[in-house]
Amino acid sequence: MNSSDLQTVNIDLGSRSYHIAIRGSLFDSPLSYAELPKAQSALIVTNTTVGPLYAMQLQKALSGKYAQIHTVVLPDGEEFKTWQSLNLIFDALLQHRCDRKTTLFALGGGVIGDMTGFAAASYMRGVPFVQVPTTLLAQVDSSVGGKTAINHPLGKNMIGAFYQPLKVVCDLDTLKTLPDRELSAGLAEVIKYGPIADMDLLAWLEAHIDQVMARDPVALAHVVKRSCEIKAWVVGQDERESGLRAILNFGHTFGHAIEAGLGYGEWLHGEGVGCGMVMAAHLSLRLGLVDALFVARLTGLIAKAGLPVKGPVLSADDNAGRYLELMQVDKKSEAGDIKFVLIDGPGRAIVRSAPEAMVRQVIDLCCTEKLLKI
Amino acid sequence: MNSSDLQTVNIDLGSRSYHIAIRGSLFDSPLSYAELPKAQSALIVTNTTVGPLYAMQLQKALSGKYAQIHTVVLPDGEEFKTWQSLNLIFDALLQHRCDRKTTLFALGGGVIGDMTGFAAASYMRGVPFVQVPTTLLAQVDSSVGGKTAINHPLGKNMIGAFYQPLKVVCDLDTLKTLPDRELSAGLAEVIKYGPIADMDLLAWLEAHIDQVMARDPVALAHVVKRSCEIKAWVVGQDERESGLRAILNFGHTFGHAIEAGLGYGEWLHGEGVGCGMVMAAHLSLRLGLVDALFVARLTGLIAKAGLPVKGPVLSADDNAGRYLELMQVDKKSEAGDIKFVLIDGPGRAIVRSAPEAMVRQVIDLCCTEKLLKI
Repeated sequence: MNSSDLQTVNIDLGSRSYHIAIRGSLFDSPLSYAELPKAQSALIVTNTTVGPLYAMQLQKALSGKYAQIHTVVLPDGEEFKTWQSLNLIFDALLQHRCDRKTTLFALGGGVIGDMTGFAAASYMRGVPFVQVPTTLLAQVDSSVGGKTAINHPLGKNMIGAFYQPLKVVCDLDTLKTLPDRELSAGLAEVIKYGPIADMDLLAWLEAHIDQVMARDPVALAHVVKRSCEIKAWVVGQDERESGLRAILNFGHTFGHAIEAGLGYGEWLHGEGVGCGMVMAAHLSLRLGLVDALFVARLTGLIAKAGLPVKGPVLSADDNAGRYLELMQVDKKSEAGDIKFVLIDGPGRAIVRSAPEAMVRQVIDLCCTEKLLKI
Repeated sequence: MNSSDLQTVNIDLGSRSYHIAIRGSLFDSPLSYAELPKAQSALIVTNTTVGPLYAMQLQKALSGKYAQIHTVVLPDGEEFKTWQSLNLIFDALLQHRCDRKTTLFALGGGVIGDMTGFAAASYMRGVPFVQVPTTLLAQVDSSVGGKTAINHPLGKNMIGAFYQPLKVVCDLDTLKTLPDRELSAGLAEVIKYGPIADMDLLAWLEAHIDQVMARDPVALAHVVKRSCEIKAWVVGQDERESGLRAILNFGHTFGHAIEAGLGYGEWLHGEGVGCGMVMAAHLSLRLGLVDALFVARLTGLIAKAGLPVKGPVLSADDNAGRYLELMQVDKKSEAGDIKFVLIDGPGRAIVRSAPEAMVRQVIDLCCTEKLLKI
């Protein structure tokens, strides 16, 4: 594979099918948008970090296609994934008299993609949108699945819609400006696909983690493409998340509790997921579903990817109790019963509950130094 | 037809199909909800007017089915169809730890139905909901079509989703407590179905308007059932409003301008639509699509239904200009070009633009006393 080859992943969802284009030098080329339906106007939604780097180039690439191109710059960060930010998008759409064909462009990471997608799903009950993800996390995670949402003070991603983009443009060059910490956070979602679906990918990552961390374009292209393919395979079988799709939340139940417990923005989403995967692996081990070697391999790779493997203490009084409390509002919970995504033999995930005492033991173990001595 | 017979309209939308039950003594019977899927909890959304009349009875009817039943009471009126009210529903859902199976019940008129529907569409990206419409407008209009939305300061129904209920329970007894003005407003949407699709219905209404205004249950059952059937026929062919469905907006382009121009809540939605139909009929006449007799018949029926037929003056300086300005943000507009639903011969609607000078003439005519002298 050459780094200049265009990679494509097709997402087959009937009338809502689209494709993901993966390469460098993509987002600033008019050709990337040539096949999009015509419209009078476009709205670029970006943030204060990504906007100054790339918004002008995107606007230039779109200038031949749309008579009017407007830009909304939102504050950067998970803590701004709120109704207030979303409403800035609606304000701009209405102030500029945008119509039902106006196309929204999400230029940024997962937060921008989720908010722009929800705005597109809701404005006039649905307008077209295109994802231009500029973080590894957004490229491997938000590109596939159509999940859009904002946070509520009482829960993450609690308000949203399933809504598909017209196209996703993953420009690998935009990853050059990504801070190290965010590269690691993105890798959490990449590593995830190994234990739940493809142990070959896990082995490939173990062998190539140094190239990936050094942002080698060929390695990154493989990482993005393979992640999107696996996610597409899962989502293709369960678009509305009634069953199988839940396995994509491996590490997320613990991870969301960490994010919420520390306050959104303290740990990055991927950091919570990285640490959450270690905790979910330990719970799988306690239930006799995997062996200690598997847990050690996964923990080692997560650590090499620059991610935390030790859980933060969320409460000095009753740390495990606080984790449990936070996990009960997870969307997978039914009637307060927490559903975990666990590994049922390497490469295969299941969704099930676990005895509370066992969950408490795992939390206690994973939030202490003993963790790394398995 | 006996007033005690249960009338049913099936809405065929594949996996999202549901049915509308129409009769008296329906909403307070557990049997009306027997076929709904099981869940731990239900949330009744109602307002300060309808809640005191019916919320306890609904709660009692549901008490055998759900372990927990919560109620949210919102302020009453179109001016409260806002994000702030919507957020009160999300607050309640999260405070009570409602899960993905929690069923929402919209108990009230169109505003409650639209907001509850959008909350159900968005909470955890979609939870089940049931409509219990207590106004004629909601029974004949919101029952079919899956349109949900809130208003934005710059436009009505600008933020929303297409989302179908599990069931609609139209209890004709709840219409007994409806103020006369709201009965008339509901009739606007009933009358609408004549010119756009069924002149037999228009003739039936001309012959039975007195019974309808007297709230005769047999007459009301016919009105609700026939309106739902016609709307279902239209929506069944165009669920996402890409073409045909737009004809349901007959009278709405002018009507929305009236509502927005006077300030939401000043005129009821149905009053705007009633007057808007007169204006759209005059525009159809000017374009040579209908004759003066048709305009007179329609205007006469609208007046007999207790609805305004003369347009309000929205600006002392340039009244027609203000109407045009307000109509340009209508969702049907594309690139500022206003699309009107017009009558192309009695019983048949088309969507088209019209010369601005002609639209101005119609507005000037319909906002003066000359109107009734056609």
